[in-house]
Amino acid sequence: MSSTSATPASVGVASTAVAAPLALAGYADAERARIERRLLDWVAIPSISAHPDRAGDVRRSAEFTAGLLAEAGLEHVEVLETPGAPAVYADWLHAGPGAPTAVVYGHHDVQPVDPLELWSSPPFEPVLAAGECRGRGAVDDKGQVLFQVEAARGLLRRHGRLPVNLRFLIEGEEEVGSPHFEALLAAHRDRLACDVVVVSDTTMWAADVPSVCTGMRGLVAATVVVRTAAGDLHSGVFGGAVPNPAHLLAAAAAALHDGQGRVALPGFYDAVRPLTEAEAASLRRLPFDEAAWMAAAGVKCLDGEAGRSTLERVWTRPTAEVVGLTAGYGGPGIKTIVPATGTLKVAFRLVADQDPAAVLAGFRAWLAERFPPGVEVTVTAEGAVAPALTPVTHPAVGALCRAVEAVWGVPPMFTREGGSGPEEALGRVLSAPVLYLGVGLPGDRFHAPDERLVMDQFWRGLLAAGELWRELAATPLG
Amino acid sequence: MSSTSATPASVGVASTAVAAPLALAGYADAERARIERRLLDWVAIPSISAHPDRAGDVRRSAEFTAGLLAEAGLEHVEVLETPGAPAVYADWLHAGPGAPTAVVYGHHDVQPVDPLELWSSPPFEPVLAAGECRGRGAVDDKGQVLFQVEAARGLLRRHGRLPVNLRFLIEGEEEVGSPHFEALLAAHRDRLACDVVVVSDTTMWAADVPSVCTGMRGLVAATVVVRTAAGDLHSGVFGGAVPNPAHLLAAAAAALHDGQGRVALPGFYDAVRPLTEAEAASLRRLPFDEAAWMAAAGVKCLDGEAGRSTLERVWTRPTAEVVGLTAGYGGPGIKTIVPATGTLKVAFRLVADQDPAAVLAGFRAWLAERFPPGVEVTVTAEGAVAPALTPVTHPAVGALCRAVEAVWGVPPMFTREGGSGPEEALGRVLSAPVLYLGVGLPGDRFHAPDERLVMDQFWRGLLAAGELWRELAATPLG
Repeated sequence: MSSTSATPASVGVASTAVAAPLALAGYADAERARIERRLLDWVAIPSISAHPDRAGDVRRSAEFTAGLLAEAGLEHVEVLETPGAPAVYADWLHAGPGAPTAVVYGHHDVQPVDPLELWSSPPFEPVLAAGECRGRGAVDDKGQVLFQVEAARGLLRRHGRLPVNLRFLIEGEEEVGSPHFEALLAAHRDRLACDVVVVSDTTMWAADVPSVCTGMRGLVAATVVVRTAAGDLHSGVFGGAVPNPAHLLAAAAAALHDGQGRVALPGFYDAVRPLTEAEAASLRRLPFDEAAWMAAAGVKCLDGEAGRSTLERVWTRPTAEVVGLTAGYGGPGIKTIVPATGTLKVAFRLVADQDPAAVLAGFRAWLAERFPPGVEVTVTAEGAVAPALTPVTHPAVGALCRAVEAVWGVPPMFTREGGSGPEEALGRVLSAPVLYLGVGLPGDRFHAPDERLVMDQFWRGLLAAGELWRELAATPLG
Repeated sequence: MSSTSATPASVGVASTAVAAPLALAGYADAERARIERRLLDWVAIPSISAHPDRAGDVRRSAEFTAGLLAEAGLEHVEVLETPGAPAVYADWLHAGPGAPTAVVYGHHDVQPVDPLELWSSPPFEPVLAAGECRGRGAVDDKGQVLFQVEAARGLLRRHGRLPVNLRFLIEGEEEVGSPHFEALLAAHRDRLACDVVVVSDTTMWAADVPSVCTGMRGLVAATVVVRTAAGDLHSGVFGGAVPNPAHLLAAAAAALHDGQGRVALPGFYDAVRPLTEAEAASLRRLPFDEAAWMAAAGVKCLDGEAGRSTLERVWTRPTAEVVGLTAGYGGPGIKTIVPATGTLKVAFRLVADQDPAAVLAGFRAWLAERFPPGVEVTVTAEGAVAPALTPVTHPAVGALCRAVEAVWGVPPMFTREGGSGPEEALGRVLSAPVLYLGVGLPGDRFHAPDERLVMDQFWRGLLAAGELWRELAATPLG
């Protein structure tokens, strides 16, 4: 499958003549103030799913989501309970015989916000200025869910109906690896029956280079806690003779990669599906500006697997990333201790056809050999998401490309994303192709301080959603 | 020099016949409630020198110290300013012609207190129960300074005079490596002229196995901050192609030691003075119960330099200890980022004749080779203390041993301490031997949660100080 070819033309997507006016043309102008207010109110809810003490806020965000859907004219609005944070369901199923059904997926939970001091304004006091909305969750993913909800609202207000049957499923645990999502899908499989899944949680190549994503990396993460002593010890009195968790965890973290930047876990790459020659060639054709990418990332050097390009590294290769390493004293000055405990958090990004459970098992086995007897080691799985790939030859992908072209004026590129969501489970459990209509941009600081949503992308996303439903209704999905 | 021989008898200390009543016998009973109140009030002051926002509390502690000294009858009480936290000076110089002069050294600043949740009671709300005082600074070092102050007070109340001239010098920056102490000593060298320095900031072998320390390890510490990006990055979008400070710092921390547990910095051991055969033999004779030591430390295994005993490791060998390693996310759950920055804090314990400045320079040079261009690395020195050794053959050491034997009933063992203080500078700048009259115990949790002072040791320390001044007055120090 050629999921990274440079233009959709090469995989048989016919460009529509630019003719019909956009289904939602002018809607933004009429509704701007109200929609912006909804966006700001939603982003103001600190729905951090990783923090147990924010459970009430995540629930409040679910209720806010339900309110948005009801206000838009969706039916059967329901907060779906899970053993963790609640999801939200709503539908509109009156498109008539023969009309396709789409599930719109997004999430209403957000990432943690630290380091707080690096934010230009408080993460949950969103600011709308200079064409951007800044705040935690603005682009990931509240803003992207909102353009979908508002597109449905606009079509219902204007036409009294939608061209397709729509089901919204807005999750509340995406940022912690969707631990209960697959069970939720399975439990509601009948209610979620569909011809296509549309995910709005991804980015485009650039504001003037629209693109659609065809695959995402998977994720499996774990927290490793090491304890060597009952409490911190004086480094003068005990140092040199007692085990130090910082040393043990640093050694483990350092051993995660070999000298070539490859993940050193035995068998880690065994299941990786190699790129076809066509995929590799299309990857090379993408107009990738490495200097600009580095500037957007804010880095002055690159690192990674030897012999791979940057796009290969972030889209097509698995990784082992230490996302947290904490042992001992981190405050000002020095504290002369041997710490008693330390924490290592590792997130593995996976590609087709790696199995998260197998990678986690391999990590556990690898860890088991790394610590001496007498050291207490606890490994906690932090959720898993399988990698996902959608065949670009599916007719629904053609419909998506035409919808994007109708709004942006040029046909989209095909890309992949290095991030992870529950897309693989959606496609697998619901037996439907997964489309990605995402409007984030590389500079949107997903998961970082000063996360933003570019409002022009938001309004275009809203228009594109309207087009997508029209295109899907007119496309035989086989 | 045989600083670790098993009994002082072997180095010519004559045991006194148990005859004269102790100079301060009965003082504790008469003054107990008042002295305990002073101890609790002092420990309640959060004089954490490592925290800039505690500067006011450190000053308050200095003023409290000055008050104690004035109340005891000391003269010329003065808070001595430094570019950092203030020290306190006081003296009593009326012992008459021919009487020796002693400088009593201690410190009134304390260690930070985190992790706060591991304390049984708040660190600055000291508790006196079951024969112990629990609180930050109880044994390190407020309690040990207090027994010295109270011994002077008791002798002055009872006899109107002291057998020796006394100068107190109580520092306020010991827990941050005494950055301004040597300059303070140099500036007040004339005023601090003395025949002997007595440090009360160390531990004994056990409550029933009294010991006197003859040497301490030195310390040099540094904070290494690495920055690779302007802000944290999404590990899905960027992970695998950008440098990760957690990986870089883990690799550096892991490379600090070789496979034999030896510090891997080039030339690190070059200046280490080897143990003489006599020292090594006496070390082996000490009644060391490794299982009990491990239980006191709360560890279930040992670690360190291959081929060295535990006491060798903690007293006679230098170390490189990671006292803090912090990068990325440390909260509950997972955060899928590539962190932008990380911090490594390393404390090197040094032994005679290592030079802190040379070790720090070696560390800087070693670090300079470890990070690729484009990674921002900042190394901050966190203070340095040279290692110290006192010849056990000095007659003042004999006086100390007799004083301890008079109180504990058995002659003390000679030990070393693995910890670091400004003892080397005291001895060198003031050209005097350094004696250690310390009453801490191995289980006192120096620098850790639930620091405690065993009150019986405190009262014995008070008695021993009284004896020490009597013995010193009767000992030709020539």
